[in-house]
Amino acid sequence: MSNEHHVDFDRENRTGFPEIIYGEGKTSTQIINIIHELLPRHHKALITRIDETKATEVLHHIPEGRYNVAARTLVYGQCDPIELGHVLVVSAGTSDVPVREEAVETGQWLGCRVETMTDVGVAGIDRLLSQKETLQNASIVIVIAGMEGALSSVVAGLVKRPVLAVPTSVGYGANLEGITPLLAMVSSCASGMSVVNINNGFGAMYQAAQILKLAADLSEER
Amino acid sequence: MSNEHHVDFDRENRTGFPEIIYGEGKTSTQIINIIHELLPRHHKALITRIDETKATEVLHHIPEGRYNVAARTLVYGQCDPIELGHVLVVSAGTSDVPVREEAVETGQWLGCRVETMTDVGVAGIDRLLSQKETLQNASIVIVIAGMEGALSSVVAGLVKRPVLAVPTSVGYGANLEGITPLLAMVSSCASGMSVVNINNGFGAMYQAAQILKLAADLSEER
Amino acid sequence: MSNEHHVDFDRENRTGFPEIIYGEGKTSTQIINIIHELLPRHHKALITRIDETKATEVLHHIPEGRYNVAARTLVYGQCDPIELGHVLVVSAGTSDVPVREEAVETGQWLGCRVETMTDVGVAGIDRLLSQKETLQNASIVIVIAGMEGALSSVVAGLVKRPVLAVPTSVGYGANLEGITPLLAMVSSCASGMSVVNINNGFGAMYQAAQILKLAADLSEER
Amino acid sequence: MSNEHHVDFDRENRTGFPEIIYGEGKTSTQIINIIHELLPRHHKALITRIDETKATEVLHHIPEGRYNVAARTLVYGQCDPIELGHVLVVSAGTSDVPVREEAVETGQWLGCRVETMTDVGVAGIDRLLSQKETLQNASIVIVIAGMEGALSSVVAGLVKRPVLAVPTSVGYGANLEGITPLLAMVSSCASGMSVVNINNGFGAMYQAAQILKLAADLSEER
Amino acid sequence: MSNEHHVDFDRENRTGFPEIIYGEGKTSTQIINIIHELLPRHHKALITRIDETKATEVLHHIPEGRYNVAARTLVYGQCDPIELGHVLVVSAGTSDVPVREEAVETGQWLGCRVETMTDVGVAGIDRLLSQKETLQNASIVIVIAGMEGALSSVVAGLVKRPVLAVPTSVGYGANLEGITPLLAMVSSCASGMSVVNINNGFGAMYQAAQILKLAADLSEER
Amino acid sequence: MSNEHHVDFDRENRTGFPEIIYGEGKTSTQIINIIHELLPRHHKALITRIDETKATEVLHHIPEGRYNVAARTLVYGQCDPIELGHVLVVSAGTSDVPVREEAVETGQWLGCRVETMTDVGVAGIDRLLSQKETLQNASIVIVIAGMEGALSSVVAGLVKRPVLAVPTSVGYGANLEGITPLLAMVSSCASGMSVVNINNGFGAMYQAAQILKLAADLSEER
Amino acid sequence: MSNEHHVDFDRENRTGFPEIIYGEGKTSTQIINIIHELLPRHHKALITRIDETKATEVLHHIPEGRYNVAARTLVYGQCDPIELGHVLVVSAGTSDVPVREEAVETGQWLGCRVETMTDVGVAGIDRLLSQKETLQNASIVIVIAGMEGALSSVVAGLVKRPVLAVPTSVGYGANLEGITPLLAMVSSCASGMSVVNINNGFGAMYQAAQILKLAADLSEER
Amino acid sequence: MSNEHHVDFDRENRTGFPEIIYGEGKTSTQIINIIHELLPRHHKALITRIDETKATEVLHHIPEGRYNVAARTLVYGQCDPIELGHVLVVSAGTSDVPVREEAVETGQWLGCRVETMTDVGVAGIDRLLSQKETLQNASIVIVIAGMEGALSSVVAGLVKRPVLAVPTSVGYGANLEGITPLLAMVSSCASGMSVVNINNGFGAMYQAAQILKLAADLSEER
Repeated sequence: MSNEHHVDFDRENRTGFPEIIYGEGKTSTQIINIIHELLPRHHKALITRIDETKATEVLHHIPEGRYNVAARTLVYGQCDPIELGHVLVVSAGTSDVPVREEAVETGQWLGCRVETMTDVGVAGIDRLLSQKETLQNASIVIVIAGMEGALSSVVAGLVKRPVLAVPTSVGYGANLEGITPLLAMVSSCASGMSVVNINNGFGAMYQAAQILKLAADLSEER
Repeated sequence: MSNEHHVDFDRENRTGFPEIIYGEGKTSTQIINIIHELLPRHHKALITRIDETKATEVLHHIPEGRYNVAARTLVYGQCDPIELGHVLVVSAGTSDVPVREEAVETGQWLGCRVETMTDVGVAGIDRLLSQKETLQNASIVIVIAGMEGALSSVVAGLVKRPVLAVPTSVGYGANLEGITPLLAMVSSCASGMSVVNINNGFGAMYQAAQILKLAADLSEER
Repeated sequence: MSNEHHVDFDRENRTGFPEIIYGEGKTSTQIINIIHELLPRHHKALITRIDETKATEVLHHIPEGRYNVAARTLVYGQCDPIELGHVLVVSAGTSDVPVREEAVETGQWLGCRVETMTDVGVAGIDRLLSQKETLQNASIVIVIAGMEGALSSVVAGLVKRPVLAVPTSVGYGANLEGITPLLAMVSSCASGMSVVNINNGFGAMYQAAQILKLAADLSEER
Repeated sequence: MSNEHHVDFDRENRTGFPEIIYGEGKTSTQIINIIHELLPRHHKALITRIDETKATEVLHHIPEGRYNVAARTLVYGQCDPIELGHVLVVSAGTSDVPVREEAVETGQWLGCRVETMTDVGVAGIDRLLSQKETLQNASIVIVIAGMEGALSSVVAGLVKRPVLAVPTSVGYGANLEGITPLLAMVSSCASGMSVVNINNGFGAMYQAAQILKLAADLSEER
Repeated sequence: MSNEHHVDFDRENRTGFPEIIYGEGKTSTQIINIIHELLPRHHKALITRIDETKATEVLHHIPEGRYNVAARTLVYGQCDPIELGHVLVVSAGTSDVPVREEAVETGQWLGCRVETMTDVGVAGIDRLLSQKETLQNASIVIVIAGMEGALSSVVAGLVKRPVLAVPTSVGYGANLEGITPLLAMVSSCASGMSVVNINNGFGAMYQAAQILKLAADLSEER
Repeated sequence: MSNEHHVDFDRENRTGFPEIIYGEGKTSTQIINIIHELLPRHHKALITRIDETKATEVLHHIPEGRYNVAARTLVYGQCDPIELGHVLVVSAGTSDVPVREEAVETGQWLGCRVETMTDVGVAGIDRLLSQKETLQNASIVIVIAGMEGALSSVVAGLVKRPVLAVPTSVGYGANLEGITPLLAMVSSCASGMSVVNINNGFGAMYQAAQILKLAADLSEER
Repeated sequence: MSNEHHVDFDRENRTGFPEIIYGEGKTSTQIINIIHELLPRHHKALITRIDETKATEVLHHIPEGRYNVAARTLVYGQCDPIELGHVLVVSAGTSDVPVREEAVETGQWLGCRVETMTDVGVAGIDRLLSQKETLQNASIVIVIAGMEGALSSVVAGLVKRPVLAVPTSVGYGANLEGITPLLAMVSSCASGMSVVNINNGFGAMYQAAQILKLAADLSEER
Repeated sequence: MSNEHHVDFDRENRTGFPEIIYGEGKTSTQIINIIHELLPRHHKALITRIDETKATEVLHHIPEGRYNVAARTLVYGQCDPIELGHVLVVSAGTSDVPVREEAVETGQWLGCRVETMTDVGVAGIDRLLSQKETLQNASIVIVIAGMEGALSSVVAGLVKRPVLAVPTSVGYGANLEGITPLLAMVSSCASGMSVVNINNGFGAMYQAAQILKLAADLSEER
C-alpha cells in the first residue's frame, strides 16, 4: 500500500505552499515514503497529527527533522519567511495547549512570525484586557477556545484585524466534544471572525499564513 | 373545557408565590376563569406568554390589570416587596427586549427591586466594563443573550453574586433557535452560573426572587 | 509548560472565592506548581476532576491535603464558614454518587453547611415525600439525577427555595450521555429551577455557596 | 387520485380492529370514498387528524358521524364494548387537551371504558397523590405530558398496571417540539412504561384497547 | 457507601413485583448487601446488567443464584407463575442475542411463559411469514431489532395483540447507536406498538408481565 | 438577474441527459428564459419543484408544455425511449403521492417505461406480498416511504434488482421531517439498496434512468 | 424603546469600520434613530437584513440612501476605498443570489473592489475550471454554496489565496437548512478555508475587507 | 447459541446472490458453522467485518479461504463472472483504504470486473480531471470519501453512469464520524447519485453488482 499516495508536487505552485502530510491514518512507512519524495524537491516537509511512536520511526530513517510531542507535528526545514506582519495565537487554558502548539509549529514552518498569549479566559477578562495593545498590534489573531468558546467573540470586538477562531473539544457534557463552541463561534455576534474545524490549529494558521503572504505579494506589486 | 384547570391554591404556601398562569395554549375564557378564582384569594395574578388579542379580551372582563405588549405579560396587583437586595437584568441587544421585559415584569410583580442594563454586548466589551461597578453591586445578575451567548460567561467572571443565564432564540443559522447559546451557557468556563430555558425571562426572575426571599428570611431568622 | 498557568490571585477579591483548579487536562507537575502558588496566599486550595494517580503524586509533594476518590477532589484547607443557611444535596441512586460527592466536597470547602438525601427516585415517590420537611427546611436544594432527570421537577414543586439541577450521564441509550436529562430539566414545568452542565456537581454547589454568601452579606448590611 | 387507497378489509380479522383512517394528507373526497367503502362492511369508521373544514365536508355527505374539534376526530358508530377493565387517561395541563381528546375519542370508539384525570402535574405532586387510588384502580394508565415529560415516571412508580406514555410538543425551547419528553420518557428510571410518538394519543389508546381485549379473550379461553 | 441503597420493600405491594436491581454502576459489595436484604423478605431477586466478574463475586457469597452471561442477569428464585397467556420474543439476528436473553430471563423470573422466535429479519420476510401462526397465537409480542428497526412494523401489522418494540444498538454509522431504530419504531406506521429504551430487553418484558398479570387479575375479578 | 443562469449545453453530452431545471428559488421569468435557451437545442425540457402559479405563467409564454400539479413538474417534449427494462415505483400511502408523481413524470420524460404500485405498506404486508411477482419482474424498484421507512427494507429482501429508496417527510414527531426514515433506510439490514434525499422522487428516477441506459448501451456494445 | 440602542461611536477607531446595523428585530423608528446618530459623525451607514417595508419607511425619512431588495441592504455613503487587492464572490446558483448580493453590497460599502462569478457548481466542474485564472487572480475568494457545499473545497484547492466559505440554506431535506453545508465546509479536506454562519454574506465580506485593509496598512508601514 | 442462525438458502434464488455473512457480533464458532452450511450448497462464501483473530480461527478449520486484513473480509470461492461492464472504485485518501478494500473484495467475489482510482481528492482537482476518460469509461462509479464528502458531487457531474457514494468516518470534529459527509452526499446538487451507509463499501458494491447483472440479464433477454 506504500505507493498509494501520489505526492502533489504542483501544489506549491498552485496554492503557495507544498503539500502538507496529515499523519492520522497513515503508517510510518507511508509517511517515510512521502517524505522521501518531498524532500529532494521542496527541501522541507511538515507532518501533522503524527503520534510519538510513528514519529520516532520516521526520525530513525530521516533524522534531520524535529518532533513536537504536544503539537504532534514533525517538521523538516521550513518555508521562506513571510516578510510582513505577524500572527498572535491566543488560547484560554492549559488544556488547549496541543491545539496551540500545532498552530505555532505550522506557522513557523510556513514562515510566519508567530507570537502567543496564553491562559486568558473570558472568566477573568481583566487579564485579557491588560494585554489589549498586544492584541491590537497583531496582524491576525487566532483564538483557540473550548468550553463555550466565548473568548473569540470578545477578542473580535477588540481588534481591527481578522480573527480566526478554533473551537476545541476541551470541556465535557454540553460541550459535545467541541460542537457547541463550533456552533457558538459561527453564531457569534462579533464581526470579522471566521471559523475552522474543532481542534484544527493547523487550518487556522494555514489561512493566517495565506493572509500574510497576500499582504506581502500585494505590497510588492504596488 | 373552561373548568379543567384546577387552581393550585396551596402553592403560595408551599412554594412562596401564588400560581402564575402560563397563557400559551389557554383560551381567554380559560384565563378569565382562572383569574376569577385567583383574585379573591390572592388579590394578585400574573399571566405570562399572553398575546395582545387575548389580553384585550381578559382586560375587557377584568379591567384592573396592566398589559405589557413587549413582555406579553398581564399583571394584577403584586406580591409584597422583598426587602433585601436587587436584581440586575443585563441584555445584549434590542432583539432581546421581549425576554428582558418578561423578566422585569415578573420581578416587579414578585416584589423584587429590578434594575436593567441594556445594549451591552461582548463585541463591545468596554461598554460592559465601564459599568463594572453596577454589575458588582447587584445581588443577582440575570444575563439575557442570543447569538452565541458569550455575554454570560464574561459577566460571571466579573461578579461574586449568582448569575442566571437566559439563552435567546435571537440569531439565525447555527444559533439553532437558541439551542446553541443554551448549550454554550451550560458549558461555560465561568463558575457561578446556572441556566434556564430559551427565552425564559420569567423563569430566571422567578429564581432570582426566590434567592432574595431566602436572604430576607434567613436574615430575619438570625 | 509548567509555568503556563497564571494564577488569578485577584479572583477571590473579584468573585468571592479563590481560583479553583480544574484538574482534567493538567499534569500533576502543573497542579503542584499551581498549589505552590495558591497556598502561601490563600492557605487553601480545591482541585476538582483529578484522578487517583495524579492526586497521589500531588499528595506526595504537598501532603497536607485530602483526596476523595469518589468525588475525584483534592482539598487543602477550606474557606471561612458561611454563617446562614444550608444546602441539601438530593440524589437518586448509587450511580450518581460521584457527582454528589463532588458537590459535597466543594460545598464543605467553600464553607457551606451541607446535608444529603440519597436514594430517592421518582419511581418511588413516597420515599421522597416522607422527607418533605427535610426538603422544605433546606435553604437551597441541589438535585442530581440521570436517566430522564424527572426528580428535579418534583422537588422544585415541593419547596419554596431555589433548586439547582444537575443532570448526569447515568443511564444508557436515549439518555444520550446526559443530554436528555439536561434538556428535560431545562424544559421543566416547575418554576424556580436552574440547570448546570452534565455531572457538574461542583458548579451547582459553587452557585449555592454564592447564594448563601449573598444572604449572609445582605443580612449584615441590614 | 380518489381510488388510490385500497381499504384493508382483512385488517379487522387480522388485527382485531377495522382500518382506521389517518386524515392528514388526504382530501375530503378521498376520505368520503374510504368511508363509503368501510361503512357497509364494518358499520363504523374512525378518522383521526382531520381538520374542521374537511370534517364539515365529509359530514355534509355522510351525516351520521360526530366531529370532535379538539380531538380532530370524526367517528361513525363504534366497536363492540370490551367487557373487562378500563383505561385512565392522565394529562398535565390544558395545553395537552387535543392529545387527551384524541385518546378519549379513540378509546370510546374502540369499545373501551375510558376515564380521565386532568391538570395533575409533577410541579404540584400532592394533587396527583391525592388521587392515588384512582390511579391504582385503573387497568391501564395513559400519561400525556409535554415540557420535560416527568409525569409518566412518577405515575409508573405508583401503579402496578402498564403505563403508556405520550410525549407532547407542548413547551418551547429545549422541549424541541416534543423530542425532549420523548427521549426522557424512553430513558425513564421507572419500570413498566412504554412510549409512543409525540402527540400520538390515538396510538397509546389503540394499544390500551388491545391490552383490554387480550384480557377479555384470555379470560374467556380460561 | 454500601448502605446507601434503601431497598424499596413496599414496591411489590405497590407495583406488583419486588424491586429489581440494576447492576450497572453498583459494586459487588453493594449488590450483595441488597440481595441480603431482599431474599429474607421476598425469597427471590433479579439483578440485571451485571458483568461476569461481579456476578462471580456475588455468587461466591450467595451461591443459590444462576448467572446468564449473554443476558448479564443474575437470578435468585422466581415470582409466582402468571397463569394466563404467553410472551413471544422475536429477534432478528445473532447480534441481538444479549437483549433477547435479558428479556427471556426477566420474563421467566417474573413468572411469564416465554417463547422465542429467532433469526427472522425483514430482509428475508418469508421466514417470518412462515411462522405467522406462531406470531398470531402469542398474547404479546416483543420485537427486538437493530439496524433500521423495520421488523417491529411488519410484526405489528400481522397480529392483533400488543407489540412492544426494543430498538438495539446493533449496526453502525447511521444507526447512531440505536437512536435511529428508536425514532423509526416510534414513528412507525403500524398501530398497536409502543417502544422502550435502546437494548432494554428487561423493560419490554416487565411491561409484558404487567399485561399478563392484568389479564389474570381481571379474569379472576370477573 | 434573468441572465444569471448559464445553461449547461454540454451536459447532455457529458451526463447523458440535458440539464433539468430545479424550479424552487427561480422566478417564472428566469425559468422562461432558460426554457427559451434549452428548447431550440434539445427540443425538450423538464422543470421540477415549480408551483402552480409560476407554471401557469410559464405556460402562458411557452404553451406546448404540460403541468402536473401533484408532481409540481412542467414538461416539454421528452427524451428518446430507453429500450430495455422498466422501473417500478412503489409507494406506501396517499400522502406520498407528490413524491411518486415527481418520480413518474421524471421517468417518462427521461424515456423510461414506468409502472406504479400504490398503497402497499409494511403494516399490511400481505397486500405487498400478493404482488411479489410484479416486484420481482421490475428492472429497478423505487420505494417511496415516510413514517419509519421500513417498506424499502422489505422490498429489497424480495427482489434481485437494485432498490432505490426515497424517504419522505410524511409523518410527525419522531419522523423529524424525514430525517428518521432517511437514517433508517441508510442503516437498513437489506443489501442492494441505496438512498436519495428526502422527498427526492426526481433523483431516484434519474438514477434509475441511468441504470437502464447503461444496460441498453452495454447490450449494444456486446 | 427607541433610545435603547447606544451607538458604538468608538467602533471605527477600534475595529477599523463604523458600527453596522443589523436590521432584523429592530423597528424602522429604531433604525431611523440610529442612522440619525451615525450619519453626522461617520457620513455613512450600512443596514443589513432590513425588509422592503422598513427600508421604504427609513428612506422616506432619510432619503439619500439606496436599498437593494435582493440583498436586503440599505446603504448611505461608503467607506474610503481600500487600495490593494480585490475580492471575488463565487456562487453556485440563482437561489444563492440574496447571500451574494448581501456580500457584494457590504464589500462596496466597505471600500473593497468586488467581482463576481456566478452559476458555477461542482456538478459542472468544467465551467468553474474554465475560469481558473480569474479565480487565481483574486486576492480573496468568497464561496457561497448551499446543498452540500462542495464548491468551496474545490475552489480552495485551486487558489493560493484565502477562501471564505458561506454555507446557505438553499436545498431541502438533508440540507438541514444549511447545517449540513456548514458542517461539511468546516470538515473540508482543503486547506486555507474558513467558514462563517449560514447565509452570512455580510460576515464573509467583512472579514475580506479586514484582510485587504491589513494588506494596505502593512504595505504602507513597509 | 451456535445453531441460532438459520442460513437463508433461498436467498440466491430470490436475490441473485447467496447469503453473505456479516461477521461483527458473531463468534468464530458461529461463523464456522454457517460456512459449513453454505459451502456444500453454494461452493462459495463471503464474510465481511471479520477481524483478524476470528478469521485466523476460521481459516484454521476451513483453510481454503483468503483473508484481506485491510478489507476485513474472508472469501471462499466466488460467484460466476458478470459478463458486461465494470465498476470503478474511486477513493480520496489512504485513510479510506479499508472501505475501498471491502468494496473491491466484495466486487471480485460477486463476479464483477473492478478497477480502482486512488488518491484523488477535490482539493487537487486536476489529478481527478486528468483521469476523466477513465471515469467516463466506467459502467458504474463508486466514490468513497470522508471529511466533507465533496468528491462524489464532482464525479457525478462528470459521468453519465450511476454514481454510488460511500461516506466514511475519516475526519474529525465536524465530520461527526461520517454523519456530515452522509448528509452532504444525500443533499448533493449533482444528479445521478445515491448513497449507502457510512463506511459501507460492501453495500455500494453489492448494488453495483446488481446493476451489472441487470444489464447482463436484460441484454440476454433482448
